[in-house]
Amino acid sequence: MSGLVAVHVGAGSHSSSLKGEYKTLMKKACNQAMALLRGGGNAVDAVCAATQVLEDSPRTNAGVGSSLTADGRVECDASIMDGRTLRHGAVGAVPGVRNPILLARQILEAQSQPLPGGLVPPSFLAGSGAQVWAASNNVETCEPAELIAERSQRIHEESLRNIQRLEEGGTKRRRYALPEEEEEMQGGLLDTVGAVCVDGAGYVASAVSSGGLLLKHTGRVGQAAVYGCGCWAENNCDGSGVSIGVSTTGCGEHLIRTMFARLCARAAISPSMGRSIVDAVTTHFLESEFLEGVHPRMAGALILRHDPQGSVSDLYWLHTTRTMGVCYMTTNDRKPKAQFSELAEEKIGVAVHLQSKSFGGGIPVTTPIEGMRAGPSHGEASGLLVGEETGKSDSSDEEEEPG
Amino acid sequence: MSGLVAVHVGAGSHSSSLKGEYKTLMKKACNQAMALLRGGGNAVDAVCAATQVLEDSPRTNAGVGSSLTADGRVECDASIMDGRTLRHGAVGAVPGVRNPILLARQILEAQSQPLPGGLVPPSFLAGSGAQVWAASNNVETCEPAELIAERSQRIHEESLRNIQRLEEGGTKRRRYALPEEEEEMQGGLLDTVGAVCVDGAGYVASAVSSGGLLLKHTGRVGQAAVYGCGCWAENNCDGSGVSIGVSTTGCGEHLIRTMFARLCARAAISPSMGRSIVDAVTTHFLESEFLEGVHPRMAGALILRHDPQGSVSDLYWLHTTRTMGVCYMTTNDRKPKAQFSELAEEKIGVAVHLQSKSFGGGIPVTTPIEGMRAGPSHGEASGLLVGEETGKSDSSDEEEEPG
Repeated sequence: MSGLVAVHVGAGSHSSSLKGEYKTLMKKACNQAMALLRGGGNAVDAVCAATQVLEDSPRTNAGVGSSLTADGRVECDASIMDGRTLRHGAVGAVPGVRNPILLARQILEAQSQPLPGGLVPPSFLAGSGAQVWAASNNVETCEPAELIAERSQRIHEESLRNIQRLEEGGTKRRRYALPEEEEEMQGGLLDTVGAVCVDGAGYVASAVSSGGLLLKHTGRVGQAAVYGCGCWAENNCDGSGVSIGVSTTGCGEHLIRTMFARLCARAAISPSMGRSIVDAVTTHFLESEFLEGVHPRMAGALILRHDPQGSVSDLYWLHTTRTMGVCYMTTNDRKPKAQFSELAEEKIGVAVHLQSKSFGGGIPVTTPIEGMRAGPSHGEASGLLVGEETGKSDSSDEEEEPG
Repeated sequence: MSGLVAVHVGAGSHSSSLKGEYKTLMKKACNQAMALLRGGGNAVDAVCAATQVLEDSPRTNAGVGSSLTADGRVECDASIMDGRTLRHGAVGAVPGVRNPILLARQILEAQSQPLPGGLVPPSFLAGSGAQVWAASNNVETCEPAELIAERSQRIHEESLRNIQRLEEGGTKRRRYALPEEEEEMQGGLLDTVGAVCVDGAGYVASAVSSGGLLLKHTGRVGQAAVYGCGCWAENNCDGSGVSIGVSTTGCGEHLIRTMFARLCARAAISPSMGRSIVDAVTTHFLESEFLEGVHPRMAGALILRHDPQGSVSDLYWLHTTRTMGVCYMTTNDRKPKAQFSELAEEKIGVAVHLQSKSFGGGIPVTTPIEGMRAGPSHGEASGLLVGEETGKSDSSDEEEEPG
């Protein structure tokens, strides 16, 4: 096994009717990354290329097609980490950049260029200043409105009306979104995208990109931009000899408060077929005091563990949401393999579901394992787009003309 | 001992002639916080009030008087953490907000208010979006230019000229700054401010506020806005029974990559009179692989450790820079006590100097301890404003008219 790339389209609630489309997209992303790896590219090149493909689809909540802010704009978060240099480049709430991951990468790379007078290159740029950097560093900028997809606009309008109805004491009613979009809205649309990779030289890298939460406040920064929270890549992680790459997805505020990427990386060091990861996520996320009062708790992660001894790589993906879509491919494979993982409805936000696959010496496929928080379940989903749904959609005060 | 507040004016290179002024300012901040504590305020109220006083001084690199970006603006980072709720509120690269710490606090508090439809309140806002939030949440906004102090403008112009000369292959020459400002410029002006507090109920809180690095790119976000890096407050830290508050200062990029606030918090759990902290900073900052190739390494922290058993509080302050200014006061004290700590010139950026004081049962004052990185020292300071100075200021190509 001389190289492995894996991508995800987030932990969320993917529509059954769209899964085929998501799989095709993820395969394209894997193929693109693999072509680079085979052509001599490194892990950073690969995760960047894969994420760029995912961003370019109006179907994912990243780049074009991102969720809109409450005031109707696209503002993106993204970051990338190089496990070899341990450098990290991040952008937060940036408007008008077609591929936020390319900007994050440019910020990553610029850190290796000394500046005159010992000035320190930035590792994290936010808002319009990040767009200024893009414009002066050959990263494509565009009119912010160009990143608004039709789908995002429909969902935005529907969500605003739902909120308004809730504020007026009514129940909500959907009108504008397509049926498959409605299905996805129920899950909260947390579909951040990302990628992890180990290249032929054994170096790992990771990337994450997100349009953030639906109806977020302008300027809101989520985990995808925050060090230790959105992605992690560390060769010889914590001196263990093992290299780890992580890309996270879910509710950014929850993932920041639990430093989710680094949490998963530390937990993945132990060669326990994923049990240590499930335990860590149960204890330090589902039961964490840092999320006191927060229910449901929404997270997901794609984790790559590479042990240079024997050249074994393990891939793990976990989520506390209803679904998560992943795809992977090694340099030995002719085709990438895409799949969706699912968590039972009553466990959403209170349990973690983990699947894994081993490459190059380990047990090829391991059985899924789950962990669940102790104590009362608080299982009722309570988001704008989840729950509060059953039997209410027919109530009589909800007719209105289509937008 | 029923309450303790401590503040800092950053790790940097404070001018000898200005130390009196800094001390007066820090005492004012402590007194203000103590008045609140005595009036029934909690730790969050106290650190917020203290930080506000420090921001309001044009002498500190926070709020009015912040360092200017390369394009001449003030953009501020700040965050606050409540050790009781473990919530964190942060703002990054925000323009036109007189007291960024008040905005961070507003973001902290808003997280306890449920939003309609289960929308998640933000924990981190950046750029102009943060200013929008301020304007709609009763946090005072202003014209961005109102935050530019004369001192900042002088230093900015001088720094720009220095950079230009360096780029043209010349040496640098100072012209515009006052003598005491020149002295401070030599240290890199890393004077982030902040505060830590334990209140009468035993709850801890911490705050940090910064104008960021001189000549930073617009949109640059430093550690003061980043979770786990700028400040930390955790009652019953890691389940140890001990409560910890931390406020960091230094080069933001270095502090982000080492998650410096959380690093210090974890290290302070052990009751080792500061030795565990010095060891942790030596290993995980001065010798950290996450800062490979980075010299000198600039950091500082103010750390409060409160052990409810016996009601003992220990205060630690450490820095790898030339100086650090701190001030503290307990509810038993009539007056706050301010002091500057100093590191020998040859140790700047390669060694850590720690001082401590114990309240309410411990050894009142402990001797300073130091740790130094193993291996070659790389002690030559190499910043825009440090080093490259000796004997060069008289070179003949450097005359120009004053600005």
